[in-house]
Amino acid sequence: MNVREEARKMKLAAPYMAAKSMEERNAALARIIDALEQNREAIFRENELDVAAAKEANVAQAVIKRLKFDENKLRDAIAGIRQMIGLPDPVGKITLSRELDEGLLLQRVSVPIGVIGVIFEARPDALIQISALCIKSGNCAILKGGKETARTNRILFGLVHGAAVAAGLPESCLLQVELHNEIDELLQCQGDVDLLIPRGSNQFVQYIMDNTNIPVMGHAAGICHIYLDEKADLAKAIPVIVDAKTQYPAVCNATETLLVNRRIAESALPAVLKALVQAGVKLRGSKEVAELVKKLGDAGKLGDPGAREMCDAGKQGGSQKAAGQGSGRLDGSSFDVEVMGEEDFATEYTDLIISLKLVENVAEAADHINKFGSHHTDCILTEDDKAADYFMQMVDSAGVYRNCSTRFADGFRYGFGAEVGVSTGKLHARGPVGLDGLVTYKYRLTGQGHLVGDYVSGKKSFHHRDL
Amino acid sequence: MNVREEARKMKLAAPYMAAKSMEERNAALARIIDALEQNREAIFRENELDVAAAKEANVAQAVIKRLKFDENKLRDAIAGIRQMIGLPDPVGKITLSRELDEGLLLQRVSVPIGVIGVIFEARPDALIQISALCIKSGNCAILKGGKETARTNRILFGLVHGAAVAAGLPESCLLQVELHNEIDELLQCQGDVDLLIPRGSNQFVQYIMDNTNIPVMGHAAGICHIYLDEKADLAKAIPVIVDAKTQYPAVCNATETLLVNRRIAESALPAVLKALVQAGVKLRGSKEVAELVKKLGDAGKLGDPGAREMCDAGKQGGSQKAAGQGSGRLDGSSFDVEVMGEEDFATEYTDLIISLKLVENVAEAADHINKFGSHHTDCILTEDDKAADYFMQMVDSAGVYRNCSTRFADGFRYGFGAEVGVSTGKLHARGPVGLDGLVTYKYRLTGQGHLVGDYVSGKKSFHHRDL
Repeated sequence: MNVREEARKMKLAAPYMAAKSMEERNAALARIIDALEQNREAIFRENELDVAAAKEANVAQAVIKRLKFDENKLRDAIAGIRQMIGLPDPVGKITLSRELDEGLLLQRVSVPIGVIGVIFEARPDALIQISALCIKSGNCAILKGGKETARTNRILFGLVHGAAVAAGLPESCLLQVELHNEIDELLQCQGDVDLLIPRGSNQFVQYIMDNTNIPVMGHAAGICHIYLDEKADLAKAIPVIVDAKTQYPAVCNATETLLVNRRIAESALPAVLKALVQAGVKLRGSKEVAELVKKLGDAGKLGDPGAREMCDAGKQGGSQKAAGQGSGRLDGSSFDVEVMGEEDFATEYTDLIISLKLVENVAEAADHINKFGSHHTDCILTEDDKAADYFMQMVDSAGVYRNCSTRFADGFRYGFGAEVGVSTGKLHARGPVGLDGLVTYKYRLTGQGHLVGDYVSGKKSFHHRDL
Repeated sequence: MNVREEARKMKLAAPYMAAKSMEERNAALARIIDALEQNREAIFRENELDVAAAKEANVAQAVIKRLKFDENKLRDAIAGIRQMIGLPDPVGKITLSRELDEGLLLQRVSVPIGVIGVIFEARPDALIQISALCIKSGNCAILKGGKETARTNRILFGLVHGAAVAAGLPESCLLQVELHNEIDELLQCQGDVDLLIPRGSNQFVQYIMDNTNIPVMGHAAGICHIYLDEKADLAKAIPVIVDAKTQYPAVCNATETLLVNRRIAESALPAVLKALVQAGVKLRGSKEVAELVKKLGDAGKLGDPGAREMCDAGKQGGSQKAAGQGSGRLDGSSFDVEVMGEEDFATEYTDLIISLKLVENVAEAADHINKFGSHHTDCILTEDDKAADYFMQMVDSAGVYRNCSTRFADGFRYGFGAEVGVSTGKLHARGPVGLDGLVTYKYRLTGQGHLVGDYVSGKKSFHHRDL
């Protein structure tokens, strides 16, 4: 396939797609549901072949679990499309209506972006969800899924595309790209592809961002923080810390770093660390934290000091800087703190590991987050309104939270109905991105022979009256 | 200067800049006005040295005119800052307020983008205007002006920056970059610079877009069209065509191509061409147009056919494809049509030249514009509502106009108060960009110890109530 040529064709088809009414787009979505339901057995058969091939190739168990597409996943995918049909139309909203002068009317109206390229992980439900999002928002889409689901994607794409075209959408509304080297061709389609949405590993997203002139929406990293303030209510705070770190550690909105106010460190850390360690979290931290934990352990404040073991950095696969670690034992759980260097605080673990650091106050916490974070989602735990206001003003992230888990950063939880992804960029869309992130706007100006010369010469003047 | 280091410093200062109240930002703008007024003589002296050097270097007269900074330009610049002080605050607007569940409140609030790099042409008033826009919107800015105004920019920057800092804004709120090679360093500051706004020649803007991973806002080309529909009112239409082409041909919103409905070509072209030629416009066009014009000339419909001259392509510096041109004479004005190839329709003249083409209907006009245009601003001239609706729906441009000049595409004319530039990109801001284009948003979520685990387990559920 010549991706450039196909993208050009799609670009020229995009205005026809954008002109389809909400009724036509929703009818296409309904037809997709029918096609999926009527071909469930064939879909499962293809998916079983993908799964068998993946097992043969010794693909990791977690990946195989994701690429399996069964009765339950089909049901969820169809429920998702049904929900999307019910969402309000993101297209055609008039967001500005202004008379510039007598008979000269300006309107700003939301329109689809045009052609969107989405590169996504090996998850068959992703193909369905992304196609539905693009159709609902009137966009054309080029889709490239993970290679481990090639057979499943092929049959799903055929069904989705066939149903869309049968419902009257343009032939070029959707295109599937299957070869990995075609991604590089796609990256060269500036001018025809209006937006790229890469999903997958940080490394992959970064590769896309580094190798294209097309605007990219997504997030390369999710380094989220919690700052435990001097005025925190520990009964409320500790469950939030545990939820934010452990509820689903593999995702971008899980917390990676806990900053603790120095004034409460000695009193708060025992209970905080106990809760984290009991939840299976490994501890890393600054030298100061490690020494404090060692001191607390020696003083018997972390449990039975007699059972304390000296830290063995090698055992933990830790860094060479691992000198002076505090260590201890509590209820049989280890809470050794592996010492990390300052620059290591820019680490996304996506695992049951947390970075610990003491800070003087909320100002130092905000500075640390702005320096080492990824501008995703960061939280302050405090009962002090002034500290909370300062934090939420000064932390430069898509989400700034108070007294709740960073895991809430999600389009469904925000009530957007569907989520394209999370953006850590600041242009266009920021944070969880729903259907509104897939539209732009155009200005419509209607006159009656109005000339700019008349305004430049002073013969006429604007009155700019909002309607 | 180490631009990367300075940009990093600015990035860390940006949250402090963003936290300044509107009163503080407006006070800084007022102080800048005072500084400029008190130092007018020194400014003019430096500017005279720039102008003298430019003359010595045989810089083009048009450029010298732009780089002159005199009493009138200073007055206009100060009036611009005064007007900006009066504009509403683009920062701190709450655009979403939703209770996700009991006690869990989500707000979306507008915030400054952060660090903006602006590279602009040799015009001293540009430095003042851009600094004022960035201060008003709470952004930090790195400024690089044209080298021909180095002395003027240096004194202006010193005054503006000094006044801003004296008014309490952070030391790093503004930075001037003076060396051309520092632009390339600036292009490498992804992560610290949030947005680049290049202004200047198409070639320059394209160079910036091709050589950075930082999001770029701007327009590389302005290929605007007018489509003269079958149902146009010529008395209304012809002045619009002339205004759009000739009122200021050097700018991006001037029209480059006139598409004419084939059914009215023979009846309408004589009057249209007469008006254009009388305004000094040179004609290029498809072979079909050229032959029609020749036919019209031969038939005496373009004036005195006896005075018709055969076209001399070489004389006009035209293309080698210039065979079969129509030509004629009218009131002593030449209206030879130089034949152009299809691909030449993607040409921005920024000069008194127009491309002409016949099309079958509004659908062909829209397709042509989507294929050859630059998605800037395009207009239909018609009294037919259905054709107008089709055109405004199907043309994929930032501005879609009916019965008015494309030259209206401008932030001041739209009533935005101030304009950063015009964007032909579709992400973030499209068309003329005012202060609203210099802000993004963040989500604030306030809870009372809310955990995601409770919603995943089904213990709690969201009610998503907009407030």
